[in-house]
Amino acid sequence: MAVYTEVADDEMAAFVARYGIGELLAAKGIAEGVENSNYLLHTKQGVYILTLYEKRVKAEDLPFFVALMQHLADRGLNCPVPVRDSRGEALSRLAGRPAAIVTFLDGLSVKRPSAVHCAEVGRSLALLHQAGEGFGMERVNALSVPGWRPLAEQAGADADKVSPGLAKRVMAEIERHERSWPQGLPSGVIHADLFPNNVFFIGDKLSGLIDFYFACTDAFAYDLAICLNSWCFEADASFNLTKGQAMLAGYESVRPLIQAEVEALPALCRGSALRFLLTRLVDWLNVPPGALVKPHDPLEYDRKLAFHQRVGDARDYGLKR
Amino acid sequence: MAVYTEVADDEMAAFVARYGIGELLAAKGIAEGVENSNYLLHTKQGVYILTLYEKRVKAEDLPFFVALMQHLADRGLNCPVPVRDSRGEALSRLAGRPAAIVTFLDGLSVKRPSAVHCAEVGRSLALLHQAGEGFGMERVNALSVPGWRPLAEQAGADADKVSPGLAKRVMAEIERHERSWPQGLPSGVIHADLFPNNVFFIGDKLSGLIDFYFACTDAFAYDLAICLNSWCFEADASFNLTKGQAMLAGYESVRPLIQAEVEALPALCRGSALRFLLTRLVDWLNVPPGALVKPHDPLEYDRKLAFHQRVGDARDYGLKR
Repeated sequence: MAVYTEVADDEMAAFVARYGIGELLAAKGIAEGVENSNYLLHTKQGVYILTLYEKRVKAEDLPFFVALMQHLADRGLNCPVPVRDSRGEALSRLAGRPAAIVTFLDGLSVKRPSAVHCAEVGRSLALLHQAGEGFGMERVNALSVPGWRPLAEQAGADADKVSPGLAKRVMAEIERHERSWPQGLPSGVIHADLFPNNVFFIGDKLSGLIDFYFACTDAFAYDLAICLNSWCFEADASFNLTKGQAMLAGYESVRPLIQAEVEALPALCRGSALRFLLTRLVDWLNVPPGALVKPHDPLEYDRKLAFHQRVGDARDYGLKR
Repeated sequence: MAVYTEVADDEMAAFVARYGIGELLAAKGIAEGVENSNYLLHTKQGVYILTLYEKRVKAEDLPFFVALMQHLADRGLNCPVPVRDSRGEALSRLAGRPAAIVTFLDGLSVKRPSAVHCAEVGRSLALLHQAGEGFGMERVNALSVPGWRPLAEQAGADADKVSPGLAKRVMAEIERHERSWPQGLPSGVIHADLFPNNVFFIGDKLSGLIDFYFACTDAFAYDLAICLNSWCFEADASFNLTKGQAMLAGYESVRPLIQAEVEALPALCRGSALRFLLTRLVDWLNVPPGALVKPHDPLEYDRKLAFHQRVGDARDYGLKR
């Protein structure tokens, strides 16, 4: 979480004047998102977020993300809505970076989600999957199975410095998934990173979803597997079955899973734990000395992976069948 | 600029509930201030800033800063106002740090101040000095003459790695000021760090002053000297006489300088340039490798110092006499 690109207030005011959102009254760099620089803008018309896309986001992917937020918002999902400038463009440039202004969403993220929060997230995830129907663009999931081996190779033998035997454990998982990854499941737009910090609540009520910069076209049930990983485990890596039941029931109250998805769920959970283990591992091994940003602990997902390896079927996650 | 201490949204909500400012709707870590962690809070009643005081601010100084903001705001100065909790306390603790909530000020800081901005700052600085009258607390300026030699010793011979001969130049200045620093000038509360990033404007109109965490009891004209240094030089270290004239005229439109202050102004400007040269030098030499925060260039103040060394009298800064 950081602001990588500093923009002076008066340069910001000149930029904002091109959007029909009123005079800029205040601009604050906010410490949110590991990938981009974000500014909170207060104008005479309201509050907005300005994002400068740093190098980890590919410029060619931006039209997909911006069009997706517009598509989902048009279908009633509470997510940031891109604001268009006087030329009708939602994507622009500022300080040498691609930039966009989106609407601000009120709400607080939860650090320790309850089963009520998990039910809300499951329900909203299914609504997101439905709202994505008819979206005309596609984006390959760069962090699915074919992306895992290159990540493991990037970490290399250094993985064992993080935890003895990790390099071998990771490679065994990759080989397993390369052989038998579930195919042909219902697919469409998925969020692919719906962690607690990307979901807002006011009280116990879900108020919005943010950060669509990993969104892509992939199996809906894989998105659900990511949420089971990121919402339903306790700090000691034990799986909270009550939370899993709540999330799955919340999801199925909107979009019931088909039998193929139910059967695939353990593999999808196991694979998505590996995906976060791998990206965190590479970040962990590449943190510059003295950096203010502390990377996420990769071993959290090594411990979650150990749970998934012992799972029998989807009922172990709380699915009622 | 950074958030050093992360606080989860739900912990923040519990903390904010102790203040009578309405339910917390959003909390964002903002990248503002080198010394502390700041959060922008949106509640049902409005917008506030929560500050967690990191180790560079001494806990025993906090009652002075908080009482000062209250005193100045009570006298009509547009500065952050501390909010009191249900026990009537403005200072509290959160995440193991001293913490305070203050009101949010709209406005934008300017990167390239014009003469109009300088006139506004001069006028507001004099209003601040007047508003400080009757404030019952005192705080020694830890970064005045007696603090400079320890800073130079901390930098030591490494100063010459930043610029050849710098260690010797700095020591000659310190010795000069230790012998002949102006004494007995009109004194009271000064801001002591009124750089452009601590002053907000809406259009050309000054809308507020922030960051009172260097405020102390010292000569008013020293505060003015700090502003001449930080507002009236161009990027190439040339002094802009039009801006100097505007700032001094703005100041004197509220509080005319007495003869002793006029005579002391060159020494005060020279000394305050040295003060920022020294603190920046120490920060520059102590930046951890790979840190995201780029320290300010100490040599900017070495170049300003060279200007002050050639000054004859206060008219060279634009004072009309």
